[in-house]
Amino acid sequence: MTESEILERLRRRVRVPRNSELITGIGDDCAIYRPRGSREDLVLTTDMLIEGIHFETSTHRPADIGHKALARGLSDIAAMGAQPRFCLVSLALAPHAGAKWIDQFYNGLLALSERHGSVLAGGDLSHSDRITCDIVVIGGVPRGKALLRSGALAGDAIYVSGGLGGSALGLATGRGAAKRRHLRPEPRVELGQFLRTRLRATAAMDLSDGLSLDLARMCQASGTSANVEFLPLFPGATPVQALHGGEDYELLFTVSPKTRVPDDYAGVPLSRIGTMQAGSVGCVFLKGRPLAALGYDHFRQ
Amino acid sequence: MTESEILERLRRRVRVPRNSELITGIGDDCAIYRPRGSREDLVLTTDMLIEGIHFETSTHRPADIGHKALARGLSDIAAMGAQPRFCLVSLALAPHAGAKWIDQFYNGLLALSERHGSVLAGGDLSHSDRITCDIVVIGGVPRGKALLRSGALAGDAIYVSGGLGGSALGLATGRGAAKRRHLRPEPRVELGQFLRTRLRATAAMDLSDGLSLDLARMCQASGTSANVEFLPLFPGATPVQALHGGEDYELLFTVSPKTRVPDDYAGVPLSRIGTMQAGSVGCVFLKGRPLAALGYDHFRQ
Repeated sequence: MTESEILERLRRRVRVPRNSELITGIGDDCAIYRPRGSREDLVLTTDMLIEGIHFETSTHRPADIGHKALARGLSDIAAMGAQPRFCLVSLALAPHAGAKWIDQFYNGLLALSERHGSVLAGGDLSHSDRITCDIVVIGGVPRGKALLRSGALAGDAIYVSGGLGGSALGLATGRGAAKRRHLRPEPRVELGQFLRTRLRATAAMDLSDGLSLDLARMCQASGTSANVEFLPLFPGATPVQALHGGEDYELLFTVSPKTRVPDDYAGVPLSRIGTMQAGSVGCVFLKGRPLAALGYDHFRQ
Repeated sequence: MTESEILERLRRRVRVPRNSELITGIGDDCAIYRPRGSREDLVLTTDMLIEGIHFETSTHRPADIGHKALARGLSDIAAMGAQPRFCLVSLALAPHAGAKWIDQFYNGLLALSERHGSVLAGGDLSHSDRITCDIVVIGGVPRGKALLRSGALAGDAIYVSGGLGGSALGLATGRGAAKRRHLRPEPRVELGQFLRTRLRATAAMDLSDGLSLDLARMCQASGTSANVEFLPLFPGATPVQALHGGEDYELLFTVSPKTRVPDDYAGVPLSRIGTMQAGSVGCVFLKGRPLAALGYDHFRQ
């Protein structure tokens, strides 16, 4: 089974009571919970980061790992157009991660958390033979206003922020700006809120597993297909890295074709990459030809 | 460093903004968040369960693991006197956990989640060489009413639910009711709410790492010491298992000495084990003699 198949199977099994305050469950970047009487919905996401799977201690310093663990969760919050509020961190330490490692890990994590107002509120400590970190980030968004990946309509323009393939390039070369992109991804938190409040984006998600796979997921959720016409490359990245490379943590979003989208937001380029289409639900085309969803799946590789 | 030392160090480093809706951060069973305008506080907890550390696949069937992963989180929610609302599950699968394993894991988890109204709302999937599960449970409790471990006063009576040492006994013998206690702990969710609404407990926490260590933590948080006079043993368990064995997931709580506590709640015995005292903050005594906090610490053993 692939990751998507496991999730779909699980989604069908879970019974959500009719009076539940749970608005969105399995299947989007975040779950959405509506506390009774509150003007805000809460969005919640959880993300694992495992030594040897998501990072190597030979390339990632402890502060990089702390940064990346939280950045992945913040990126999900950004994709909902929400404001981060707080986070919880579960950390299993391996024997090679001593007191100094722990301090530096939290240095990286806390620096990013303070920058985005996501207070560390708790967690769990354990040990293992691989460093394993699971992070929960909770954000707030005005009631009913969270951006979903399911809201795109045929005819909507598809955009991405930044240049794609940088993280894959950095992983391959271990050099320069691409290396920094790989080690220290920058969650697009303010941009997410701009998409919600100013551009009234119809759908949004973050690019964690590669455009080809993530865009197919957005199409599946929205009941559309997508035609990609243009790829904004991270400097030096190949089209293959931009299409299928994971961990860029840029935002993928759609807007009504009438919406005027600025060329950039706070220095981050916003590029139109294509158009949502009716039919062939869940399929992505590159200039009209079918594009395989070769992005990262934990259970296919 | 011990687990407690790492947490204390971290607690001192985290800056909580003055206008934060975060009521309680690092240091209790759950973090407490107060959504603006809501009559309810949300309590959140996270708990890791790792193959080879917290369980072995030779003794735990997949459904046991799913049950236990959620039971640990629900037990924290119970300790706050809260009602579970939903949960998120991050799961890293090892090659030996295939489609059938996954199905049975979620069978165990979903059966418990439906029984306690804790809807599975999302999570994350990954792979590793050890099965690793991190669970987040979110509960609701009337504003300002969550039970804390810090509220005990000198003179308060100390109680526990059930018999202690059952899980340690089950781990040692692999037999009978104790084995079931070890594999399928029963979170005391309704009891937690009874402690809050009827007994007006002054403090509560769940027994996950052994009475000697957990009671010392409650004393530390409350600024008290404790004298233990009586130990309700799980049938067959030794006093050492009852004092220092982990994973009983019973509730430890304190009440005003004037409070009348029934002998049981829904068939679960409630036993007075001792009294909170002034002075010697954080120390636990057994019939007046100092008791070492030998419960489970991930970084001492």
